[in-house]
Amino acid sequence: MISFDDLRSLARPAETKIVVLVLDGVGGLPRAADGKTELEAAQTPNLDALAARSSLGLADPVAPGITPGSGPGHLGIFGYDPLQYRIGRGVLEAVGIDVPMTDRDLAARGNFCSVDPAGLITDRRAGRIPTETCTRLSGLLETIRIPGVEVIVRPVREHRFVVLFRADGLEEGLSETDPQAVGKPPLPVKAEAAGAAKAAEIANRFVAEAGKLLATEQPANMVLLRGFSKYPRLLKLTELYGIRAGVIAVYPMYRGLARLVGMEPVRAGDTVADEFGALQAVSDQFDFFFMHIKKTDSYGEDGNFDGKVHVIEEVDREIPRLLAVNPDVIVVTGDHSTPATYKAHSWHPVPVLLWSKWCRPDGAARFTERECRTGSLGHFRAAELMPVIMGHAERLTKFGA
Amino acid sequence: MISFDDLRSLARPAETKIVVLVLDGVGGLPRAADGKTELEAAQTPNLDALAARSSLGLADPVAPGITPGSGPGHLGIFGYDPLQYRIGRGVLEAVGIDVPMTDRDLAARGNFCSVDPAGLITDRRAGRIPTETCTRLSGLLETIRIPGVEVIVRPVREHRFVVLFRADGLEEGLSETDPQAVGKPPLPVKAEAAGAAKAAEIANRFVAEAGKLLATEQPANMVLLRGFSKYPRLLKLTELYGIRAGVIAVYPMYRGLARLVGMEPVRAGDTVADEFGALQAVSDQFDFFFMHIKKTDSYGEDGNFDGKVHVIEEVDREIPRLLAVNPDVIVVTGDHSTPATYKAHSWHPVPVLLWSKWCRPDGAARFTERECRTGSLGHFRAAELMPVIMGHAERLTKFGA
Repeated sequence: MISFDDLRSLARPAETKIVVLVLDGVGGLPRAADGKTELEAAQTPNLDALAARSSLGLADPVAPGITPGSGPGHLGIFGYDPLQYRIGRGVLEAVGIDVPMTDRDLAARGNFCSVDPAGLITDRRAGRIPTETCTRLSGLLETIRIPGVEVIVRPVREHRFVVLFRADGLEEGLSETDPQAVGKPPLPVKAEAAGAAKAAEIANRFVAEAGKLLATEQPANMVLLRGFSKYPRLLKLTELYGIRAGVIAVYPMYRGLARLVGMEPVRAGDTVADEFGALQAVSDQFDFFFMHIKKTDSYGEDGNFDGKVHVIEEVDREIPRLLAVNPDVIVVTGDHSTPATYKAHSWHPVPVLLWSKWCRPDGAARFTERECRTGSLGHFRAAELMPVIMGHAERLTKFGA
Repeated sequence: MISFDDLRSLARPAETKIVVLVLDGVGGLPRAADGKTELEAAQTPNLDALAARSSLGLADPVAPGITPGSGPGHLGIFGYDPLQYRIGRGVLEAVGIDVPMTDRDLAARGNFCSVDPAGLITDRRAGRIPTETCTRLSGLLETIRIPGVEVIVRPVREHRFVVLFRADGLEEGLSETDPQAVGKPPLPVKAEAAGAAKAAEIANRFVAEAGKLLATEQPANMVLLRGFSKYPRLLKLTELYGIRAGVIAVYPMYRGLARLVGMEPVRAGDTVADEFGALQAVSDQFDFFFMHIKKTDSYGEDGNFDGKVHVIEEVDREIPRLLAVNPDVIVVTGDHSTPATYKAHSWHPVPVLLWSKWCRPDGAARFTERECRTGSLGHFRAAELMPVIMGHAERLTKFGA
């Protein structure tokens, strides 16, 4: 793959506008009834018309056979090889609730748990306490004072929270406190990397203080921490290509992932229509738009084939509004497959559609996995798509003479 | 990609003959009138018949989305990853006028420029002096004597020339003298790499002497040097595979690029027919032929769709003469795309046709970008083609037992 250094040396300014529309988990599998995938079962006249004028292909989000999480799936689309660029669990949890992080922060995933009077774990999830309780207890934990350290605690959902330790000199490389079994005490945090001693001491102090503060709570009278990680110092997509990029996404996780690579969140409502409305509203303010549609994935995970089909059709009805902002490059794809028959993220390659006035149209009849198999983009790694997008946007100059 | 070390260990002698026919910039885009690319619009009965018996594919010359210059485009075809093997600007300029270089040479691109009495640049191109003047002044510069150094100066075109410093101990890593602006003096050459001090001293001395020699000339009374680079020490294609390779090309640039990898220039005339005549004339003298057709690219750059179509048709008429030399492997491809509608090199993948008696015929109807999309060679990096060629030529033995 071409390096960021090379790409940066080739990047050149242009007036072109790019829209990358990601239908989360859009790749599917055939249902038993008629052998059609979700994309094949959907009525998508607008996407089909666009497909006929576009170049198609299939992308492996991480590598062939590998099922991606949301983080790697999106890093790939953004042009970062997910095998090389990794986001720690703590950071992903913070990103997932869209908590802004700084370079000084060390993040961890937290679970409220239950311990007996001897300090042995009786429930690693504290009976999955309601989110409201989690919110109250997170506020309590945020009162913990550690000299020289800013402690930020945010509820996630049920027993899950995220903690950020903000201070100078905090390094990654900490062991986790969850023994992954009941009947054992939480483990002390150990520094497993040079330079992580200070962070380990702070984390242990936080756990000790949390134990005191929660002593009278039931059932959430202790915490477990894991996935200690720092905010990744990525070369921002926006710096690399000299673009201004906006993210339109209903779920905070995706705004957070996009922020990692330099995109600015755009206010949108809660529906698919709201998202396309937001695109129209701010179309002059950015060179690059990442639009994220969540519910294709949610219905896929639920095994709701028809629900996923309906979201695809809902998106299709909005395509004219996307075309109306006159993008120079349009990409429609997914971050991974979530076949409704499989009810989970899967390893299957993802359909990709790329339109620009400079694309070689494949003349496909529809935008489906099957049509994408023989498209002129070929079968490629998702992280290789971004240079192709920038090529079509005339934002890369010639390599060599 | 398989390494040269591995390939060298697999290479074995054979009596087979290979012809690689490169139509420069052959890849195209559909024209508005009928949606046909140049290859689709051309009448190519011979190429089509060959395509029906061949394996097809699409190649990315450098990487997806990257527009290659001629140097990287050809290195890829010759089996050298252009991202790994780079040719400096000075060397490319020397290669472009087919000046033989040695391992001791440091090359630079030169511009004749104009300076005022205070030594400030008034025109970075000296009013684009006629090539005849450039030739005379280049001869003048070649009279410069630097102890222990052979100085070779050759005119290129208008204000451009190339200079070679031939001596022991010259290393790359020099800053250029062109300040890229008028109203400033030429910059001194600085050594930016360890070991480059000697080369910097020589370059500065050359510039000082040039200033004296040119003092009475108008408007070309000074020089600017850039792109200092040494001849790349490539493992030659010919050594790697133990072949004797000849290059048939009308333009010196392509003979020079082929010489970089060990090919020997074959005398040919100026026309496409001359080139195929040369192939027939020397067909017994080489195992491998690289034939280069320039005008597909020239017409592409000019936006002359019909002109490009006619060159493709001209080549098609010569295909029987190619077949008549009984190659064991025939490849027809391009070094990059130059769509006439785009009027420039582009990033689009390049159609590839490979015939041998051992190929799996795809049964394609034609040799076009569209047919190549679904060919059995797949969609690959150009540098991966050479081992496939050598495989079909039975010039690679089994890997492992």
